[in-house]
Order: sequence, then structure tokens, then C-alpha cells
Amino acid sequence: MTGKASKSAHIAGTRKPAEPQVSITSKFWGRYRSMTVNNALPYQWRALNDEVPVDVPDGTAWGENGSQFSHSMRNLRIAAGREPGSFSGQPFQDTDVSKWLEAASYALGFAGENPDINIDELEQQVNEVVDLFADAQDKDGYIDTKFEIDLPADQRFRGLRWSHELYTMGHLIEAAVANWESTGSTKALNVARRAASCIDQHFGDGEGKVHGPDGHPEIELALARLYKATGERRWLDLAAWFIRVRGMDPEFFDEQDHAGGPQFYKDLHMPLSYFIMQKPVLDLDKAEGHAVRLLYMATAIAEVGQLLDDARMLAAAERLWTNIVRHRMYVTGNVGSCQIGESFSYDDDLPNDLGYGETCASVAMLFFGKALMETHPTGAVADVMELELFNGMLAGIQLDGTRYFYVNPLEADPAASNGNPTKAHVLTRRAGWFDCACCPANIVRLIASLDRYLYTVKGNTIYAHQYIANKTDFGNGLVIEQSQPGEGYPWSGDIEFQISNPEGLQRSLAVRIPAWSAKWTLDIDGRRTYVQPRDGFIAIDVSKPETHIKLVLDMSVRCLRASLNVKADAGKLAVARGPIVYCMEEVDNPHDLWTYSMPVNAQVSEHYDAKLLDGVEVLKFGGVRDVQENTGLYIAVDKPVERRAAELTMIPYYAWCNRTEGQMQVWVRETVR
Amino acid sequence: MTGKASKSAHIAGTRKPAEPQVSITSKFWGRYRSMTVNNALPYQWRALNDEVPVDVPDGTAWGENGSQFSHSMRNLRIAAGREPGSFSGQPFQDTDVSKWLEAASYALGFAGENPDINIDELEQQVNEVVDLFADAQDKDGYIDTKFEIDLPADQRFRGLRWSHELYTMGHLIEAAVANWESTGSTKALNVARRAASCIDQHFGDGEGKVHGPDGHPEIELALARLYKATGERRWLDLAAWFIRVRGMDPEFFDEQDHAGGPQFYKDLHMPLSYFIMQKPVLDLDKAEGHAVRLLYMATAIAEVGQLLDDARMLAAAERLWTNIVRHRMYVTGNVGSCQIGESFSYDDDLPNDLGYGETCASVAMLFFGKALMETHPTGAVADVMELELFNGMLAGIQLDGTRYFYVNPLEADPAASNGNPTKAHVLTRRAGWFDCACCPANIVRLIASLDRYLYTVKGNTIYAHQYIANKTDFGNGLVIEQSQPGEGYPWSGDIEFQISNPEGLQRSLAVRIPAWSAKWTLDIDGRRTYVQPRDGFIAIDVSKPETHIKLVLDMSVRCLRASLNVKADAGKLAVARGPIVYCMEEVDNPHDLWTYSMPVNAQVSEHYDAKLLDGVEVLKFGGVRDVQENTGLYIAVDKPVERRAAELTMIPYYAWCNRTEGQMQVWVRETVR
Repeated sequence: MTGKASKSAHIAGTRKPAEPQVSITSKFWGRYRSMTVNNALPYQWRALNDEVPVDVPDGTAWGENGSQFSHSMRNLRIAAGREPGSFSGQPFQDTDVSKWLEAASYALGFAGENPDINIDELEQQVNEVVDLFADAQDKDGYIDTKFEIDLPADQRFRGLRWSHELYTMGHLIEAAVANWESTGSTKALNVARRAASCIDQHFGDGEGKVHGPDGHPEIELALARLYKATGERRWLDLAAWFIRVRGMDPEFFDEQDHAGGPQFYKDLHMPLSYFIMQKPVLDLDKAEGHAVRLLYMATAIAEVGQLLDDARMLAAAERLWTNIVRHRMYVTGNVGSCQIGESFSYDDDLPNDLGYGETCASVAMLFFGKALMETHPTGAVADVMELELFNGMLAGIQLDGTRYFYVNPLEADPAASNGNPTKAHVLTRRAGWFDCACCPANIVRLIASLDRYLYTVKGNTIYAHQYIANKTDFGNGLVIEQSQPGEGYPWSGDIEFQISNPEGLQRSLAVRIPAWSAKWTLDIDGRRTYVQPRDGFIAIDVSKPETHIKLVLDMSVRCLRASLNVKADAGKLAVARGPIVYCMEEVDNPHDLWTYSMPVNAQVSEHYDAKLLDGVEVLKFGGVRDVQENTGLYIAVDKPVERRAAELTMIPYYAWCNRTEGQMQVWVRETVR
Repeated sequence: MTGKASKSAHIAGTRKPAEPQVSITSKFWGRYRSMTVNNALPYQWRALNDEVPVDVPDGTAWGENGSQFSHSMRNLRIAAGREPGSFSGQPFQDTDVSKWLEAASYALGFAGENPDINIDELEQQVNEVVDLFADAQDKDGYIDTKFEIDLPADQRFRGLRWSHELYTMGHLIEAAVANWESTGSTKALNVARRAASCIDQHFGDGEGKVHGPDGHPEIELALARLYKATGERRWLDLAAWFIRVRGMDPEFFDEQDHAGGPQFYKDLHMPLSYFIMQKPVLDLDKAEGHAVRLLYMATAIAEVGQLLDDARMLAAAERLWTNIVRHRMYVTGNVGSCQIGESFSYDDDLPNDLGYGETCASVAMLFFGKALMETHPTGAVADVMELELFNGMLAGIQLDGTRYFYVNPLEADPAASNGNPTKAHVLTRRAGWFDCACCPANIVRLIASLDRYLYTVKGNTIYAHQYIANKTDFGNGLVIEQSQPGEGYPWSGDIEFQISNPEGLQRSLAVRIPAWSAKWTLDIDGRRTYVQPRDGFIAIDVSKPETHIKLVLDMSVRCLRASLNVKADAGKLAVARGPIVYCMEEVDNPHDLWTYSMPVNAQVSEHYDAKLLDGVEVLKFGGVRDVQENTGLYIAVDKPVERRAAELTMIPYYAWCNRTEGQMQVWVRETVR
């Protein structure tokens, strides 16, 4: 059992206040947290160690001898000189291990939250991975097993369009910081510092240096994180350099190719916008290109912008966020509406049956939102983070933690996925693994670090973003406990805060009033309080030794309509309740889902079913279903379509595809009576 | 001016009655016919001769020096030894010239229809092309300029997956037959017979012969046609062999590859079903794979089945047709709903915004329907042929004949085509040419041979399939004149037949009652006649010297609803009037088209606008338009969507995209009041 290291113990200088010590007590998220440690991380460990022939959706064979194994741990052992063999997998295969290490390190830190959580083996595995990375690292700090095993040293950093070297090292840096923060051990952190130092030596404006970035952003946010952990300014400067150089030289990748650098994925001809290289990245005003690349970049821009107080960076981050949430985000929070290039497409283009909505992109929206909150906490950003947490991101993982979606559609049909290749990317079963296995560990590292997404402290104000029950020590005796009676959030909107502040520190607690909660009541120490939120928060003075706050949010079922600019949702409604977006599944609704419709003011019955899908609130609507004699493909009609009363059953979107495979849809046609 | 050759003058034996001599007098089609000769064929001639830098939609550069020229005539001149140079273009580039030759040959035959038609230059160009083909042909009969120019002779017929050699020779055979039929010259026909003989020598079950077919069906229907023209049985037997061998050996293409045959399009990995090679073709019961390949094959199966009276073939053709028209055809007649592989997808999968609906596939549906009619004339088949003629096929050509659609969507939006790569195949402007330029000449050869689609003679019954005004000489004095007073069909449903039969031949004229015409009146020699159609036709005795028939079809505007199995059309209506399917265009409707809806019994006003789009009936409906304050991407609502009265203007689908570029949609949301 590993205790938490003091996060204020910076290696060089102390620049920020102590992090709050958060323990998550939420019933809903507590289940996900223990599932992550007890099921997901062990399953992924076996996958990374080739102990399960991982179940790849399209049957793609990769790895040595065409097997369907990850090979990522083996690559590390080979690079570390522990066994012979050759590299196998994607050039960035190491990141599957790094993200696992990051998630596992978080888990070591929060294991005390729940007696169900078992980390006996995990700790040993974490140490094994750290040792492997340390041994695999070259003496100059370089670490990327693809290059170390397969390519001569003079090829390093010379094929950055697809090499993913900095992406790979960035994930290792993130993992190392997490490992140090959780365990207090500096072994991994020193690997990260040597890797960052190697990058610093090779990249920059000077003579003989590489003057452009990696095709996949990641190093920028990793370096910002390394700076925040260590206080070493050079990592922040290097992160800022990578941001400022991006898109300055549109020829950069071509020049590397012409200079004889290594070329991967030669058959993939992606436009510069895919790499977020089409123009100086700080001039972007639309979210374009590969969604995860854009969002990792935007996260770094927001973080570095905040750390440097750089107005241009902060404005760029704000523009991108605004464009996404106003024009390029599904109602579930998923982003990236185009499969080709896993990319954003154009404003208000949100096809439900074709969308990509990569799980990693929703995870990245949480990174991005968290970074924006550090500069300027607003309820609008926290609302989107909540949307991702409970919907867009969460749909990416099976309830038991062992199967994953890469793509998150808002409308699915096994017949379409099997029968029309344009929709083949839309799986209707979560998969055990992927040949590009970025998503499984990404969602797990987010859940394992969820405690970091609950609060932002600005001056004397503590912003409580999320209604995820927790007990948090802010130091100097200040403890905030958020509790949720009964089944708790997201099923109930009753939230209580007990603030203990024995030293009487001057503090405000800003509680979020979600935009979706049209009504709410707020009682402070038993007295009903009427105040309008500012920027989505109500700030409450908590300077006295004890304060009790009771907030009741409006959990009425809501019908949502999309902007009329969204063609895909014309004439349709979506349903939400609290933070949860709902969907229909074939298993609950016996006819083709597109034959159902409902009025905006449909009769609704709701009940919490503790046995269904690990406990969900089920909604049933009084709607209708089109009926028509099957007399041909097209028939002339002179009467309105015949409709029969029908019950529409809906479950939370995040929980879909945990029962029988079948049709699913979020948007339902609106019946206008 | 070239007179028509007697089509009964078979080279070897006379097996069938004289073809009717049809002159099309339809105002609607007369315009298309003269436009074809005066505009389309000259434009295409210039394109084939590299005299216009053809305007390729995606800017693909091909041809010598990366130019955007067809090079197809140059390839022929090079192969004919008339000039030096190397081959350029697709392996099947010759077929662009063959199809042009076929169309131009038809035009020589029908030039007398209309004094506007000018064939002075055309005749000379036709002769030039025939001479070139004759000179380009190898002494053993082989002719395919790609192979003759680029590859050693021992590579011939050894890479049939993609070589298109038999496809290429098949189109030449079709052109040659058409040329002989129109001009009476046997020069081209003899080239065709030598080519067919070369194929006959190389293919078959015997030792040393190639035992499989070309990856792209075409030779089968070409050989059947050569047989019908010449009466030479070997071509029919060879066509039947190609049909029977197809799909018998799923390894055939792989074996050719392993044996060192030439390989084209190596990066394209298409399943066997794309080539209609997944199983014995006569066992198919669903239309799968590349739509044009499937339909050329199905046409040959129907034709050869009829010629051989082969029950298995006829049943296979019938199954495929039935599957298409019941489950895989858009309301406009377009087929092939998937861009990937230009293919059929699965039953009832008919996405309006993603569909492919290749112009060539609609042309091929006409070939297939015509072949089925030869065995068993039914109104249902002729109805689909009419649907293709006036809608699915006709949308493929600009009104002036010089720009073409390859893909025919039922919903288009320039923003989507430009902004979402999944929809990049959906052009919102017809293009001047294509790197794979199959469609322009295909639609032109169909229009130029339209006279062949009007009648089927079975025994003593003459089936009049189409309401396209014409005057036709059936020999022995029997002349049928179909006239359409006023603006004529398809705008008016008044049709008259005057039958002159001075010799009193025992004949019936079977007139089609379209399934879309719920009511009709039929007057024979001025007397109202009540009789139910059988198989979609009413047979009228026309044995007396003169018979006058007046048929009035129901041209009421109809609303159509799709089968509830069609997800894409759920809650939507399409509009048709007579044979014409309608659409909305942005130029006529100022708001985003998806915001409009209409009830099934909407008030409609109709007027014929002679100045608009070369004369169309315009429909205006009293419908509604959704309105909503633009307060965000998703808003909570508790009232039905607000709707304002709005006029929906519709024009014929075939005429879309002849004005300003903009949105288009066929299916409109149904408002249920």
C-alpha cells in the first residue's frame, strides 16, 4: 500500500499551493473507480502482456506472425535488453503502456477510497513498468522502442509527420509525473526529465536543431505538466516553443521526407489540417482536423497560456472551445463528426449515424475544459465537462470495464454496420482491444484521475465543478464534504456540502448551477437563499467553522431540440434528465427504432431500477409508432401516416450496448399533435 | 447523310423478325436527341481528342505530364501506329471512344428525326474512329490499347481482376454492332468479329485456355448482341460460358496474380462480391457488389437466358431484378447506395445524402429492364424503365448535354460535400469530365438509342412500353403513331395512338397502364372502354386498317411514402407527378431545406413554365417551416416546434443543378396535422 506523496514537494522550487486531497465517495463513480482497478487495469495488463488474444473488431492481424497481440510490453522488454526480438505494432505502441502506467499510478493514490479496491498486484506491476522504461531509455534520454529497436539512431526526430516520437515521450512524461505524484518515487520522473532534456537538446530555432513539431500534439501538454510538477522553467518554455512553431512552416514534414527521414503510413495522405499544421496554430478559429490532435493541442494552448498569462494563447483556446461547443459537439458531448481522418468536419454537421465521436476526443475535451477552468472558471465549461463525464466519454467503456468503444455513434444499427461499409467504423459491440489501442487506457486514466476534475481554486474561491460526492482536504483544516443522499447523483439532484473550516480561513465555495437545471433551491445553514448565479456559479462564504449547504437541482426530464442549423436533428428531440442524456435501445423497444416518435410534452414515467445496468433511472414515454401495410418500397398515399400509441423506453446513453446487440438511437422524431 | 441498313440482313442466317423502324417525335425527348447530336457528342469528341482541358471535379491530374486530358483518341492513334507516344489514362480508356462511337452511330441512324440535327461532321468522325480501331487491332484480333502499347503480348488475359480487357473489347463489339446497324458498313463489325474470335480462342474449359471471366462484366452482353446481329451461334455459346463460369472459382484472380499476371490498382482491395465473383453468379439472390458490374451481368443473364430459353438464367435475372426494385432502389430509380465500391449495400438501406446512384447504373437498369421485357413484358418492369428514363438516368446529364453527374444523390448540400469528406463523392455541380469517364458516353448512348426502348414484339402482340411520342414502321404496312397533344408527356397525360394496318395483319397493341396512374380512361375509336390491365398492359386488337386509341393518364400530384423498413425516409414524403419525381432546390426555397415540411394533403398549385429549365411543370405546396430562436446548439423545449406557413417549390429531379449551386432534397418531412 502506497501513501500519497506530498504534492507540494517540488523538485525545484515550489510554485503552486498544495493540491487538495480528494477522496471520491460517490456511489456512481465509486463503482467505476473500483471497477477500474479491479477489472479494467488487470484486463489491460493482460492485453499489454499478450496474455489474452485481444479481440479486435475488424479482425486485423498485427504484431509478430500476424497475431492479434499488443506486443507493447514485449517491445519494452526488447528495448530494455531483457529479451531478443523485433518491434511489433504501431510506431506509438509504447503509449499503451504509458497510459496504463499513468492510470495505475493514479489508482495507487486513490486505493484508500474504497475497501473493495485491491492493489496488491498493481503496485508490483507499476514498479515493473517503471523499471522497464528506465532500462529501455537510451543514455541520451531518448526513449521510443520503435526507433530504438528498428531504426538507426540518426533517424530520430527526422520523420515527425507520423513517427509519433514526441507523442510517445509525452505520454511517458505524463505517466511519470502521475507516478511521482502518487508514489513519491522519483525513478519514473527522472526518466521523464531525461527524455524532456533530450527533446530540449534536439528541438528549437537554433542551428542544427529540428525546427518543427510532432505530427501528433501531446508533448506540449506533457511538458506543461512536467513544469507544474517540477517547477523547472525550461519545460514550460519548450512547451511554448512547440505551440508557437506549430503550423509556421507548412513544408516542415515534406522537408523531412525529402531529407530522407523515416516515413510511416505512406499510403495515408492526410491534409495538413489533419495534423493541425495548416496555419499557425494560434491563428486557428475553427476546430479542424483530427479531433484528438486538435484537442491535445488546444489543451496545451490553454495550459501554457494560463501559466504564461499569454493573451494570444488564451484567446486561441477560447475560440476553439467556443467553436466546438456551439457548432461541433453532439448532444452527448461527443466530438469529431467525420470518420475520414477521425476529424471535425464543418459547423453544425453532426450526422448521428456516421459520426466518429472518438472516446479519446471526449477524454480530451475534459483535459481541455479543466485547463480552461484554471484561467477562468465558468459554469458553461463545467457543464460541458459534466456532459462528457456522464455521457460522451463514459459510453466508451463497458460497465464491467473490459470492453471499449473507439467510436461513439448517436444512432447505431448492426445491419448498417455490417451491410454498408460507409458505416463499418460504427461498432455495435464494444471491442476487447484495437490495433490502434489509444482509447481503452485513455478512458481508464481519466476515471482514475477523476478526483482532479472536481475543484479549481482561484484566490480565496474554491469552485466545485462537479456533483460527484467526495471528501476533500484543502489543507489548514479546511475540509469540504459533498454528499448525495439516497441513490445519489446523477439519479437524484439533492446535494449537500458540509464545510469544516476550524481555522476560519477566508474562503468562498462556488457551487455550480448547471444550465440544465432551470429551477433549484439553495439552503445555507437551513435558510433558503435566493441569489442568481454569476458565470454559472453561486459563491457562498464558508469562512466560519462549519457551513452546511443544501442544493436541490431540477431533475425533471427534459426534451432537447437542436439548432435548426443541424440538418441531422431536424424534426427530432433528444431526452435528458439531470446530466444524463438518454437513448432508445432495440432490446427495450421491439420495433425498428426509426418508426417511433413522441411529442415534446409526452407523458413520462420514471423509475430507478437498481438491478438494470448496475442501476439506472429508466424513462418511459407515451409516444406513437408509425404503422403501414408492407405493400411495396414506395407507395402513393393520401392520408397522414397511421400511428399507434406506443411506449418508448429509454436508458442512459452511457449504458447502451451492455445487453443484446441491436439498434440504438438518441434522437427521436418529434410528433406534433 | 447515311441511310439505315436493313437490320434483317444478318451476316449469317436470319433469326429474328425485322426490327421496327422507330422515329421519335416526342417534344421532350426530341430536345434531348438533338442536344445529344448537336452538343453532347461534339463536346465529348473534343474531350476525347484532348481539345478541351476537361474539368475534373476533384482536380485529379492524370494523363501524360499530369495533364487533365482524356488521351483516349491519342492512345488509339499510337496503337494504330499513326503517332509515337505512350499510353495514358485508365486501363479501359478505349471504352470512352467505343461508347462515343456507339452513340454517334445511333445518331447517324436517327438524324432524320429532326431537321435541327446536324451530322455532317459526325459521319466523318465516326469513320475516323472505325478506321483507327481497325488499324489498332492486332492481327490475331486482340484489341486493347493499354496492353498493345504498354505490355508484352504474353501478359494478355493474365490479369483479369482489373485489366478490363474483355470489358474494353465488349464495348467495342457493342459499338461495332450499332455502327453496322446504322450505316450498313461491315468494317467495324468485322473488327468486332475478329476480337470476339480472339476471345473465343483464348477462353474456355479446354487445356491452355483461360478458365475465368473479366473482373468487369460486359463481354457477355456484347457477345449476345453480336450473336443477335450476326446469327453466329458461337458468340451466344461464348456468352453463356462466361455467365456459367462466373464465381465458380473464387481463386481465379488470385491464381492469375500468383502466376505473374499484370496487376492494376494494387492499392484497391475489393472483396470478390465487388466483382460479382463471390459465388456462382446464377445462384445469386441479392444484388450485391459493384452496381454496374452486377447490372451488366444481370442484363447478360436475362438476354442469354431468353435466347437459350434457360430457366436457371431467367430465374436468376428475375430474382436480382425483384431484389433491386423491392429493396435497393431509390424513389428516383437510382441504385447503388454505397460509395465504397460503388456498390449495393443491404436491403432497404437507401441513405439520401450518402447514396451513390451512379448514372451508369441507371443506364444499366434500362439495359436490364429491356432484356427482361424480351422474355416477359410486364408493366411493372416498364414502369421502372420509365422511372429511370425520366429521373434516375436523366439527372446524370446537364440540360445542355455538356456536363455530367457520376453520382446522383437524393439530398445534396454544398457545405456537406465540401466540408465532410464522407460526402465528397456527392458533387453539387455536374462535371465536365471524370478521370474514370464511364458515365458521360453511357448516358449519351442510351439517349441516342432511346428508340430501342419503346416496343417489344411478342408473337402478334406489340407492347408499347413508353409514352414517348413516335412514329414506327413495323413492316408490311403496319405503322403506329403515338402523339401527345399540347406540351405532351411527361407534362400531360393525354396520349393518342393512330394505328394504320392496311393489310389487316392480326395484331394487338398492348398499352401500358402505369402503376402510378390510379385512374385512367381509354377510348378506342371514340368509344370509352372499360377493361382491367393484365400484367400492367391492356391489349387492344388493331387488326383493322385504322384504329385510333386515346388514353388519358392521371397526372395528379402524388405523395409517396417509403416502406417503414427504409430508415432514411422515416417520417418523410416524396412527391411525384406522372412519371416525374420532384425535388426542392435552394434556389427556389430560401431557407435550409431540412427546415421545411408539408402534410400529405397539402394544397398544391401546378403550372407549366416553358422558360424554366427548358420547360418544366413546377409544383408549389402549402407547407410549413420550422422556426426557432438561435439560442444555442441544443435547447430544452417544452412546446412543440414552432412552425410558420411556407410555400415549398418543387421542380423535376432530373432538372436539378441547372441553375445556382445549392441544397437539394427529394424527401421532405411529413407534417401530421
